[in-house]
Amino acid sequence: MKLSRKDILGIKELSVEEITLILDTADSFLEVSTREIKKVPTLRGKSVINLFYEASTRTRTSFEIAAKRLSADTINISASTSSVVKGETLIDTAKNIEAMNPDLIVIRHSAAGAPHMLASLLRQSIINAGDGAHEHPTQALLDMMTIRSRKGRIAGLKAAIIGDITHSRVARSNIHGLTKMGAHVVVSGPATMLPRDIETLGVVPCVRIEEAIKDADIIMMLRIQTEREKQNVFPSLREYAQYFSLNPKNIVLARKDCIVMHPGPMNRGVEISPEIADGSHSVILDQVTNGVAVRMALLYLLTGGNS
Amino acid sequence: MKLSRKDILGIKELSVEEITLILDTADSFLEVSTREIKKVPTLRGKSVINLFYEASTRTRTSFEIAAKRLSADTINISASTSSVVKGETLIDTAKNIEAMNPDLIVIRHSAAGAPHMLASLLRQSIINAGDGAHEHPTQALLDMMTIRSRKGRIAGLKAAIIGDITHSRVARSNIHGLTKMGAHVVVSGPATMLPRDIETLGVVPCVRIEEAIKDADIIMMLRIQTEREKQNVFPSLREYAQYFSLNPKNIVLARKDCIVMHPGPMNRGVEISPEIADGSHSVILDQVTNGVAVRMALLYLLTGGNS
Amino acid sequence: MKLSRKDILGIKELSVEEITLILDTADSFLEVSTREIKKVPTLRGKSVINLFYEASTRTRTSFEIAAKRLSADTINISASTSSVVKGETLIDTAKNIEAMNPDLIVIRHSAAGAPHMLASLLRQSIINAGDGAHEHPTQALLDMMTIRSRKGRIAGLKAAIIGDITHSRVARSNIHGLTKMGAHVVVSGPATMLPRDIETLGVVPCVRIEEAIKDADIIMMLRIQTEREKQNVFPSLREYAQYFSLNPKNIVLARKDCIVMHPGPMNRGVEISPEIADGSHSVILDQVTNGVAVRMALLYLLTGGNS
Repeated sequence: MKLSRKDILGIKELSVEEITLILDTADSFLEVSTREIKKVPTLRGKSVINLFYEASTRTRTSFEIAAKRLSADTINISASTSSVVKGETLIDTAKNIEAMNPDLIVIRHSAAGAPHMLASLLRQSIINAGDGAHEHPTQALLDMMTIRSRKGRIAGLKAAIIGDITHSRVARSNIHGLTKMGAHVVVSGPATMLPRDIETLGVVPCVRIEEAIKDADIIMMLRIQTEREKQNVFPSLREYAQYFSLNPKNIVLARKDCIVMHPGPMNRGVEISPEIADGSHSVILDQVTNGVAVRMALLYLLTGGNS
Repeated sequence: MKLSRKDILGIKELSVEEITLILDTADSFLEVSTREIKKVPTLRGKSVINLFYEASTRTRTSFEIAAKRLSADTINISASTSSVVKGETLIDTAKNIEAMNPDLIVIRHSAAGAPHMLASLLRQSIINAGDGAHEHPTQALLDMMTIRSRKGRIAGLKAAIIGDITHSRVARSNIHGLTKMGAHVVVSGPATMLPRDIETLGVVPCVRIEEAIKDADIIMMLRIQTEREKQNVFPSLREYAQYFSLNPKNIVLARKDCIVMHPGPMNRGVEISPEIADGSHSVILDQVTNGVAVRMALLYLLTGGNS
Repeated sequence: MKLSRKDILGIKELSVEEITLILDTADSFLEVSTREIKKVPTLRGKSVINLFYEASTRTRTSFEIAAKRLSADTINISASTSSVVKGETLIDTAKNIEAMNPDLIVIRHSAAGAPHMLASLLRQSIINAGDGAHEHPTQALLDMMTIRSRKGRIAGLKAAIIGDITHSRVARSNIHGLTKMGAHVVVSGPATMLPRDIETLGVVPCVRIEEAIKDADIIMMLRIQTEREKQNVFPSLREYAQYFSLNPKNIVLARKDCIVMHPGPMNRGVEISPEIADGSHSVILDQVTNGVAVRMALLYLLTGGNS
């Protein structure tokens, strides 16, 4: 089976079949990273541009490693060294990159919709590596891959997403993905961080974290952006930790075999206690490993590979 | 035929035969970037250092893509991360790079003549990727390649270069190249941006843009450095746009089949109106595509390849 | 013979046999960098992460070139673009990198001991590319390689190390290495830059540089960190240069066939006069060339190669 779309812009647009195809392909690529020779010639002669308007280690590194393991060439462009500083529009930057004939462009941008604009204007495949507070589809795909491999399925599970739901592209992509795949999704966070119409996305909001994580199979903790402390979105980091962190006391409410996820980077002691981050429920490092496999799968499928 | 020189420092030093050799070679490399597998093994085992003391997306990316399509290894060194911050002289930095035995060094530097100093001191081939207000030879070569492919020739054409002629290395390199290849070159811009002795370079200065672009086959718009607004070099961006932009009103003075060029990044609405930038005369994105081919040709010729 | 250790953290831990193995292997790799095709397939399919928390051109470039000449893939992570800015702990960053399954991590960090922490936590091989004022083992190895190739041996030679001994990881690694290999090591520098208990490391402190370099076979000048001038560690750069620089006047005290070394970047006119830096005794650029070979040797030996 082939993926019959040019771009990966969000989970919202993907069908259950497409998600399943991507996860199956990612499962098969997982093995490459454990070989002695971690390289297959699949994308030899293809070039992948990593166009990052926001700083990122893990996502950029994950895409770069994924591309190199497929033998593609990678070129990194970061905002600080780009023509952006010279006042060029994003469209002009993108058209310029297109004119150099790369095969695929991975973009992270602070503006929601930036990858979609590129996708509509450029003939190259675009992968959204995070756009504002909108979507972060590769994160949700690696999260679903992790759940599937740990739980054997996604459908029927209870997933609790905790934190700043309003501003989190990770939350949004996972809400689309997990509900689509048949999970029961609940969210919790301070009232200032829960969108008013969140039910329209098919999820149940909970005022207290305890209610959300009760009997949960999956607990997904979001990174709290500590710089928001000054914006009066929440009283203080200390109070946030007191009411919305995952810790040894409240995790007992979840299912005994629950898994704990975090997209990283973690604020230990704020949204997650160190005992939980490093504990037996945590699959946080599996997520990172699976991230390389998911990105290999997307690079492969978007350049014409079939499962 | 072989290129019998070690370095590409400026267009001024190149003969008509050398320019023709480079453009012919670039024409033949253009096809590589349109293949399914965009890679030839020509420079396997060679390493190219991109030593950029000034930020640049398009030029650095273009060189990096060119090198990778030829299977060379590329290493990027940018000023911000370099020993420059520790007060090392350019010569010492260069001698250190030489000692690591790369095959070719691409340098961009704010000081005119920096590439020439390296060329005289190092055994490696040096390509000038822009030195102060002096030369930007690869830009002029890709411009000439674009003209030749669109017009079939350069000789006999009228080329108008508009903007800050005094501070533009793009203008300087193109003036050398286009006059050498037999074009009739006129320049225009505010009086503060036209060198007094510009006629000695074989070009005709025009006070008004209308005079310059009249019957022109080629209109080359230069980027206005908006940061100069504060230096009283011109009254205001608005006034600059009013008197020296290329727009639908004045382009009718040029030949109907004229081509419009810009080295990028563009200030839309300042030196060029969006209608013109995206219009049917524009070959601006061709320039970018040809840039990769020109750089592949230079990397190939300087490492011993022949046409 | 194989290197039976996972990591290279410091010279202190290495035996004479291990140092000799590394230097012998480096000697054999030196030739690769002089070939027409400077690439061997030894590490194809391996990936090397350069994790640099401190800016560096020469060390990072040297490792990158070394890895590429062995056909490994390289991924650069620098502090400015990393999750560090988002407050992630070094351990979490490292565990994340581990989860992406690279083969080897090169780390430079301002904190002494950072590479050791990584080595104890990660299954990957770690190479210390400089940790605070602690060790810089690859520098000492390339220095010993240079001495051995110039002098035919290390044992029995007199080596003088001059400068800020207290804060220099280069000094510390070389003191461990040179004494281990049988050299007689003396050090000199302003009293504020000489550790009180330096004799315990098996070296002789000298108040005056003249005493230290007298009859020396090897003079190793350290970079003075000019930013320390303001910290009252020494009176002024001018006074430092007057009392502790190596120059044509005092070098006559050393052996006629002495060699002069400097880890770079040099402050010409401060710790070393230009005549000496560029003079016949200088092996400073040999050090750079040998640096690539030493790093190739370490990448090779740590990934399972044998001599």
